[in-house]
Amino acid sequence: MDLVQLALGESSYPIYISAGLLDDSTLITHHIAGQQVLVVTNTTIAPLFLSRLTTTLHAYHVEVLELPDGEQYKTLESLDMVLTALLQGGHNRGTTLIALGGGVVGDTTGFAAACYQRGVAFIQIPTTLLAQVDSSVGGKTAVNHSLGKNMIGAFHQPKAVIIDPQTLQSLPPRELLAGMAEVIKHGALADLAYFEWLEENIDSLLALDLDKMTYAIKRSCEIKASIVSLDEKELGARALLNLGHTFGHAIETGMGYGAWLHGEAVAVGMIMAARLSTKLGMCSAYDTERLIRLIQRVGLPTAPPTSLADKFLTLMARDKKATDAGLRLVLLNRLGEAVLVDNVDQSDLTAIIHDSTNKDSTKVNAR
Amino acid sequence: MDLVQLALGESSYPIYISAGLLDDSTLITHHIAGQQVLVVTNTTIAPLFLSRLTTTLHAYHVEVLELPDGEQYKTLESLDMVLTALLQGGHNRGTTLIALGGGVVGDTTGFAAACYQRGVAFIQIPTTLLAQVDSSVGGKTAVNHSLGKNMIGAFHQPKAVIIDPQTLQSLPPRELLAGMAEVIKHGALADLAYFEWLEENIDSLLALDLDKMTYAIKRSCEIKASIVSLDEKELGARALLNLGHTFGHAIETGMGYGAWLHGEAVAVGMIMAARLSTKLGMCSAYDTERLIRLIQRVGLPTAPPTSLADKFLTLMARDKKATDAGLRLVLLNRLGEAVLVDNVDQSDLTAIIHDSTNKDSTKVNAR
Repeated sequence: MDLVQLALGESSYPIYISAGLLDDSTLITHHIAGQQVLVVTNTTIAPLFLSRLTTTLHAYHVEVLELPDGEQYKTLESLDMVLTALLQGGHNRGTTLIALGGGVVGDTTGFAAACYQRGVAFIQIPTTLLAQVDSSVGGKTAVNHSLGKNMIGAFHQPKAVIIDPQTLQSLPPRELLAGMAEVIKHGALADLAYFEWLEENIDSLLALDLDKMTYAIKRSCEIKASIVSLDEKELGARALLNLGHTFGHAIETGMGYGAWLHGEAVAVGMIMAARLSTKLGMCSAYDTERLIRLIQRVGLPTAPPTSLADKFLTLMARDKKATDAGLRLVLLNRLGEAVLVDNVDQSDLTAIIHDSTNKDSTKVNAR
Repeated sequence: MDLVQLALGESSYPIYISAGLLDDSTLITHHIAGQQVLVVTNTTIAPLFLSRLTTTLHAYHVEVLELPDGEQYKTLESLDMVLTALLQGGHNRGTTLIALGGGVVGDTTGFAAACYQRGVAFIQIPTTLLAQVDSSVGGKTAVNHSLGKNMIGAFHQPKAVIIDPQTLQSLPPRELLAGMAEVIKHGALADLAYFEWLEENIDSLLALDLDKMTYAIKRSCEIKASIVSLDEKELGARALLNLGHTFGHAIETGMGYGAWLHGEAVAVGMIMAARLSTKLGMCSAYDTERLIRLIQRVGLPTAPPTSLADKFLTLMARDKKATDAGLRLVLLNRLGEAVLVDNVDQSDLTAIIHDSTNKDSTKVNAR
């Protein structure tokens, strides 16, 4: 079994990665302190994995809440559903929430755990690639607001993250590709050698080679864990993990939640960030081309929708990294090295947005 | 000017207490880091104090949100109103929220500050006695759920608490009395000498003697601050501050939010806790009588509504201090010394509830 430790003092926790962990009763129950458990999942995941998990947890008093599936349900209303289930079930401060599903389930459940009775325990069991390599690790929890993504939330670390890569076998292809955007992001922002490994192995990963996928999940979790352990509350270095996100959130918000998958928007956002970096004389054109090429090979979109051209800047200004001084962007010095840049010249930014939105030839699948 | 420091490492902050502080621009603006400010108040407080505060803050870009007044509005919906105002105003992570009002405004605004973009700064300017001596100090923020009070919230410390005791001159008498319940609570749970000072000065306090009121606010803040600094997250000693609250919350929830004021319910709750303590051989009958006598002199209720007799235990079981092992109560060893007690014998508890609900002769004013 692979293990990545997220070092955060008293809030430290393990990330386990191994095929079959969903059935590992000893491992999972080791991280449940009390007798009460609420499993939060969604209507898509429940038929696939819920009975296995409840069997694994047979020794506990387990209640289950199934949320509707989709980013458009990552709302205060869904949060209220989780809190209501906890209160109706008489859950006390010793309860444990378990998020079984993708990023929406994990973020919503984590935020519910953060604010139920001002904080209870929770465990992440991510079942999508996006959640396994990114959203389940690091304690960022949130729901969306109609005026901005992830605007309502908390930093609240899980007691453990339990990743069973076999769950990816039932993941819709489009979601697998979207998750791969975050995998590529980790290489691009922090580790050129990993990026090169991805260039070599991308076809095996897309074919769900279990050993290679396990390695990619582990390496991505290691990169994320090492950054989060330096800066839990995103006062500095952690913002590097948002490579592509300020551009990407503009696409997600502009198109309406759920129209684009998060990873699809991040893929385009990374390309826009890389192109801007090159324009500013930072990242070489060669590196930017390599990034675009890898994203293309995955089958992810490479340009934002033309329809957003005029409001892109306004949408970006609502980003959480914005300050009184202006927009803060994550750019690339080179592949494997991201950097925070304040006060990018507005005309450079506008030029990249204009150029990019006119490249809207690569349509996203299945929309 | 009186100053109480709440010592909490990096989250430490000052509590200032002095007549006229609402107009002290230098003091208040010292605690505002950025340029953006959202003042949250309610429709009752705004006509009284809002223009003074906005004048004090004339150098900032100040926006104002007025919530409806009342405990029944301490909800996720009001939280959403604050968050929406922040997003519509384009507030970034450097913004400062200012809560101008009583406990409902403070708790709701504080929770909004806790979860907006996963945490921004806020300042408490409490205008009710309850908020000045209790809810504005210590960083507990929350909104209510229809199934339980303060069930949704966070620990999020303000940057400063600014108390102008002159604001109490426009406080409705019933709310002044309710706030006095928390003042008495501080003496009863931690400081016999303070309790005795209250016995001697209660009439002056009720007549709003400014010097004596300033002293009471300061002493109550000192007691609360010293306990909170030992145990911010209520893992131990802080629970002592909930003297009377498990019983009191049962009354508030059972009667519907807003029917009883929080302080009224706490007054009755303290008496029930003291009576139970005496029954269990802890607190002397003499001490319990002294507590009842002081609460009577204030004009607060001394018994719970008869109508709640049958469901009182069920309502109590939903308390946040409940554990897998059972109910945890704050009881009195003597006046000035509270203690946490687990697993009180159900028959003793039932007897106290039965006796108390049959004493429902003291009706609360104005209901």
